[in-house]
Amino acid sequence: MNIGIIGLGLIGGSMAKAIKQNTDNVVLGFDRQDTIIKKALLIGAIDEPLTEERIADCDLLILALYPQATIDFVKSHAGQIKQGATVLDCCGVKQVVCHELEPIAEKHGFLFMGGHPMAGVAHAGFTHSKKALFNNASMILTPAIGTPIEDVQKIKVLCENIGFTNTQISTPEEHDRVIAFSSQLAHVVSNAYIKSPSALTHKGFSAGSYKDLTRVAKLNETMWTELFLDNPVFLAEEIDGIIDRLSQYSTAIKEKDADALCQLLKEGRERKMEIDGEKF
Amino acid sequence: MNIGIIGLGLIGGSMAKAIKQNTDNVVLGFDRQDTIIKKALLIGAIDEPLTEERIADCDLLILALYPQATIDFVKSHAGQIKQGATVLDCCGVKQVVCHELEPIAEKHGFLFMGGHPMAGVAHAGFTHSKKALFNNASMILTPAIGTPIEDVQKIKVLCENIGFTNTQISTPEEHDRVIAFSSQLAHVVSNAYIKSPSALTHKGFSAGSYKDLTRVAKLNETMWTELFLDNPVFLAEEIDGIIDRLSQYSTAIKEKDADALCQLLKEGRERKMEIDGEKF
Repeated sequence: MNIGIIGLGLIGGSMAKAIKQNTDNVVLGFDRQDTIIKKALLIGAIDEPLTEERIADCDLLILALYPQATIDFVKSHAGQIKQGATVLDCCGVKQVVCHELEPIAEKHGFLFMGGHPMAGVAHAGFTHSKKALFNNASMILTPAIGTPIEDVQKIKVLCENIGFTNTQISTPEEHDRVIAFSSQLAHVVSNAYIKSPSALTHKGFSAGSYKDLTRVAKLNETMWTELFLDNPVFLAEEIDGIIDRLSQYSTAIKEKDADALCQLLKEGRERKMEIDGEKF
Repeated sequence: MNIGIIGLGLIGGSMAKAIKQNTDNVVLGFDRQDTIIKKALLIGAIDEPLTEERIADCDLLILALYPQATIDFVKSHAGQIKQGATVLDCCGVKQVVCHELEPIAEKHGFLFMGGHPMAGVAHAGFTHSKKALFNNASMILTPAIGTPIEDVQKIKVLCENIGFTNTQISTPEEHDRVIAFSSQLAHVVSNAYIKSPSALTHKGFSAGSYKDLTRVAKLNETMWTELFLDNPVFLAEEIDGIIDRLSQYSTAIKEKDADALCQLLKEGRERKMEIDGEKF
């Protein structure tokens, strides 16, 4: 089939490379930077540029854009998309995107499917994209209610062919609730952690624990601001939750309450072991 | 020289193995579990058991015990320790230990030096100890004011011989302030992170960021309770600091203030890049 990819950044560029490497599909690519399209053509990451006219030839459109840009693209191109085609997005939030685009897709006779490839590296852009980015990663799909199972299956097979080892089917709501905890909160905490005044003087004292806690502090603030504000209820709930739990440790320490502190720490250890499937 | 090691757990056991492997010193070892002493002798991690009588033969005593046990040991054995010998501890807090033991050492004619090997693994005990534990790690030393430079140098050389690549000289106060940030806070945050109600349902949605943030949640609560309560002021300050910073993100998200949120995230990214020596 013809696969059109809009946005040849880290995710879109890696999608293009992985699809070209692992499947026989024809890949058409578009990026707002013309030099990126030329580069992608040159190294064979795409077969052809995806022009406005070629949109109608695509059986699958993969949108690798920020949430608002994803919504804007589909809204402004809905009339050009092939009847029966599938449009898959790659945004880190799903409710905002799916709720907006599912009715538009239905109205225009194509299928919109929410997708979130759980993969990334510290650096953005086509330059850092690679065909192995999705190896051993999870792909979350949030198909609309009533999506034919064979359309979900088609995307699942493609995902597996390009490296994903796990395709998770979810709802936009469940996705956004869980991702607030498993990814967004991690970025907020890491970013807040590094801002301690002590951070500037810890050289030579830094344990592995510090390195782990601050690894994702170096984030793309433009992208994450949009993602966070597209998931404000679940994320604020997670932040307020950890604030509340941290306060309990602080209180126990100030009150020198060894029993309370030990109990708090034990609960965390046991929870971690439970989640990791270890006995305790 | 004769080196006595008290406590053959992860740290003490690794010290014994690393010293035996890399130096010509005679290693005498004691553990409250007799089977551990026998095991250490059997595999050649120590040359001889360290009996009460042999304490006086040791030129260097390495205490690899919890803080209170370290203090108790020196207090109850001060009269037996050789004149001019050095006693090095391995506790993760330094003020409590050094302030208590430096005067006792001075009174009895031996040298007490605070030490904190910045190394560890998830599992405790002699079974998990290994001669390579300190490879590429930092050793923090907090010698008392007036300690002869050659005594510090002697310990520094030993540390380098057994794998440490960096020996940092500090004061007990500076150590405890920085360690509250670079290690203790990481353990508290990781432990608090995993207790989100969402943690039990994130399977298939877990990004690398989540894994990093919760890696040290599985901690030994008995040891960390003692370490935290021996450093209450600095640690509570760090916890309250991150609570305060997290509240700023939460407020910006609830108020849908994109500019404020983006600014908060940018500050964190820039701080991280500054610390990592990257340009931004």
